Amino acid sequence: MPVNYATPTPAALFPVAGVRLGTAEAGIRKKDRRDLTLVELAPGSRAAGVFTQNRCCAAPVTLCREHLAGDGSLRALVINTGIANAATGEQGMVAARATCAAVASLLGCAAREVLPFSTGVILEHLPVDRLVAGLPAAMADLKADNWHAAAHAIMTTDTVAKAASRRIELGGKTITVTGISKGAGMIRPNMATMLGFVATDAEIAAGLLAQLARDAADQSFNCITVDGDTSTNDSFVVIATGASGLEVDIASPHWPALRAAVFAVAQELAQAIVRDGEGATKFISVKVGAGGTAEECRQVAYAIGHSPLVKTAFFASDPNLGRILAAIGYAGIADLDAAGVRVWLGSNEKNADEEVLVSEHGGRAASYREEDGSRIMKNAEITVRVDLGRGTAAATVWTCDFSYDYVKINADYRS
Amino acid sequence: MPVNYATPTPAALFPVAGVRLGTAEAGIRKKDRRDLTLVELAPGSRAAGVFTQNRCCAAPVTLCREHLAGDGSLRALVINTGIANAATGEQGMVAARATCAAVASLLGCAAREVLPFSTGVILEHLPVDRLVAGLPAAMADLKADNWHAAAHAIMTTDTVAKAASRRIELGGKTITVTGISKGAGMIRPNMATMLGFVATDAEIAAGLLAQLARDAADQSFNCITVDGDTSTNDSFVVIATGASGLEVDIASPHWPALRAAVFAVAQELAQAIVRDGEGATKFISVKVGAGGTAEECRQVAYAIGHSPLVKTAFFASDPNLGRILAAIGYAGIADLDAAGVRVWLGSNEKNADEEVLVSEHGGRAASYREEDGSRIMKNAEITVRVDLGRGTAAATVWTCDFSYDYVKINADYRS
Repeated sequence: MPVNYATPTPAALFPVAGVRLGTAEAGIRKKDRRDLTLVELAPGSRAAGVFTQNRCCAAPVTLCREHLAGDGSLRALVINTGIANAATGEQGMVAARATCAAVASLLGCAAREVLPFSTGVILEHLPVDRLVAGLPAAMADLKADNWHAAAHAIMTTDTVAKAASRRIELGGKTITVTGISKGAGMIRPNMATMLGFVATDAEIAAGLLAQLARDAADQSFNCITVDGDTSTNDSFVVIATGASGLEVDIASPHWPALRAAVFAVAQELAQAIVRDGEGATKFISVKVGAGGTAEECRQVAYAIGHSPLVKTAFFASDPNLGRILAAIGYAGIADLDAAGVRVWLGSNEKNADEEVLVSEHGGRAASYREEDGSRIMKNAEITVRVDLGRGTAAATVWTCDFSYDYVKINADYRS
Repeated sequence: MPVNYATPTPAALFPVAGVRLGTAEAGIRKKDRRDLTLVELAPGSRAAGVFTQNRCCAAPVTLCREHLAGDGSLRALVINTGIANAATGEQGMVAARATCAAVASLLGCAAREVLPFSTGVILEHLPVDRLVAGLPAAMADLKADNWHAAAHAIMTTDTVAKAASRRIELGGKTITVTGISKGAGMIRPNMATMLGFVATDAEIAAGLLAQLARDAADQSFNCITVDGDTSTNDSFVVIATGASGLEVDIASPHWPALRAAVFAVAQELAQAIVRDGEGATKFISVKVGAGGTAEECRQVAYAIGHSPLVKTAFFASDPNLGRILAAIGYAGIADLDAAGVRVWLGSNEKNADEEVLVSEHGGRAASYREEDGSRIMKNAEITVRVDLGRGTAAATVWTCDFSYDYVKINADYRS
């Protein structure tokens, strides 16, 4: 059960002019499930993406980078679940290229205008014949209002489909930003997470779109962790179809609002992944401030967010908060003065507890009472706020707790 | 149940001339358990230690460093379980000093000749009055053959006591090396682990002893991980009483044998911690070779050893080996060529399976068969061997799998 998250209804996912989506059952790994998604983009569409920094990245990630190296003009995305096509060597590249060629042939575009994405088991070969055989059905299913179906078709261990949508008025036009994502485990994105797609019908120039994709990832998918494992297939793509007829550049008065809408959709999608984290029962925001650099704040936030001991204490609703201090201590800030660190516990929920100061001067805060910690730890949404007492930089990481079900899901996966 | 480990019998733990140990029930955190250990050392004994690099280190760690800053001469160790005396600020230092002063007063030595050690819950204050009140009983219990009892008295979430002992003949004398350790969770030592003590009756000069402690830690406690959490209290101390009358220096023909005996005891103690890792059902050796530097080999070995996905796959005996490739890929070697990496799976057990090549050329090895992987994964001892194809450096990390019981133990601890 995801933590305070439900998939938006189909009607709440606004179509993006210039985008049609179709899904099909290709039998990639399992029968009787829609495991193939085709996204068709109108001529003139552009895309930019950020991808995993995993050195054993998947073949489709390598091919996405290659296909986006030009001017970013794009006509289609093709996404399969079941097999990640990662650690598949040369044969994996051949399969990814064959997939793009098949889509290009069906849609009448160039293969380099198609981006391929795969998610699933690593070290197994993609059954490219079955994938290609499923494409006509996906093409026949292409519809502008298929975002909800596509969000479902890209799931693997996800328990809910993840999607978000915004409509804003810009210059007398209605501009839409809609996106979907998937992911629940192997989540510690280091550029972006396992499959996130956001599209808008605004027109955005290639260079600016690339910057938008990077910035949106940094404010969303690059702030989450479930288990600290960086996937081989992390991909986040922002698409601008231009089909609304509104061109937005960095000097435009519309840019801040469009940028904010893309950020909001990306952040909602990223947080949804944590809320649906494998075995998650709680959603934890770790906010680290007063740091010397944003990077050291991120280090501390991730140390807390990755610690199995911290995460199991959250699962148990046990205010065993010394584990947070220990994680801060080993986060890698060599000259950290423990006496200058302060830690608060609070809740994200409205009308919930005020923040409680847990630790200062290198020890337990004099005002801290165990019952306050216990009360907050029972919430489904918890904020850990850390003040490093070294500067003005800050960073936030969103994570979840660590439960029996994480082990169950990952011990059972594949079998 | 630890993986292929049982505590040596009392008779297999050879007394070290110049060392007497006593234990007592001080009621530090729980009643009716021996939670206080006193180790008395003969005049002329020296010690050297390595300690956690956690910036939120415990008060006793700070005091140990202070007390070892001189010539290393030492008369006693005092160890309590239940409360870690970590993240306890100034009051924690006062408690640690009071503990040393009380021991010094009982034994008639200087407070700086006493090293204090604490292990247990962080962020709670040490009940120093109860500790001091327990000291006379521990003193009355002092015996040379109490290593077995002391190994039990320093346990927290450990399911077995950990001890190791060697006797070697050097220059017509019998020299003994005996040690104990504790630890099962919060194990990713970064200098040494949560309480390891090794004593010998050889005489070793202060500078050489310090080097020996560092080298022994690097070959033992610095090669293990259970959950990636570096403790606030990690301490590893090597003691040389000199009571055998044999002085060994670096030029001595006896040095290599003595060094090897200390290494062997330290390694046995460190591996025992992993074998008794919280919830462990398997013991995994990760051996990374052909690296550019030892440090990058360690990075890769720890990335594999820390990955919850790899560890749950081992728990499930599921050869989902793409997870190992993913961990190698995100270990942080920016210019790693995935196509040059090879991975083998094998067993530590005698008469067990030969090594199986799992992956090469960036993908699954042509010769690899799933049934070979499945057969090896069923073993209680498994070796993952990685060849980075970049150089000649190597590193080994020992770890365990990740089971339901890890979550259970850490969600329940304290409650």
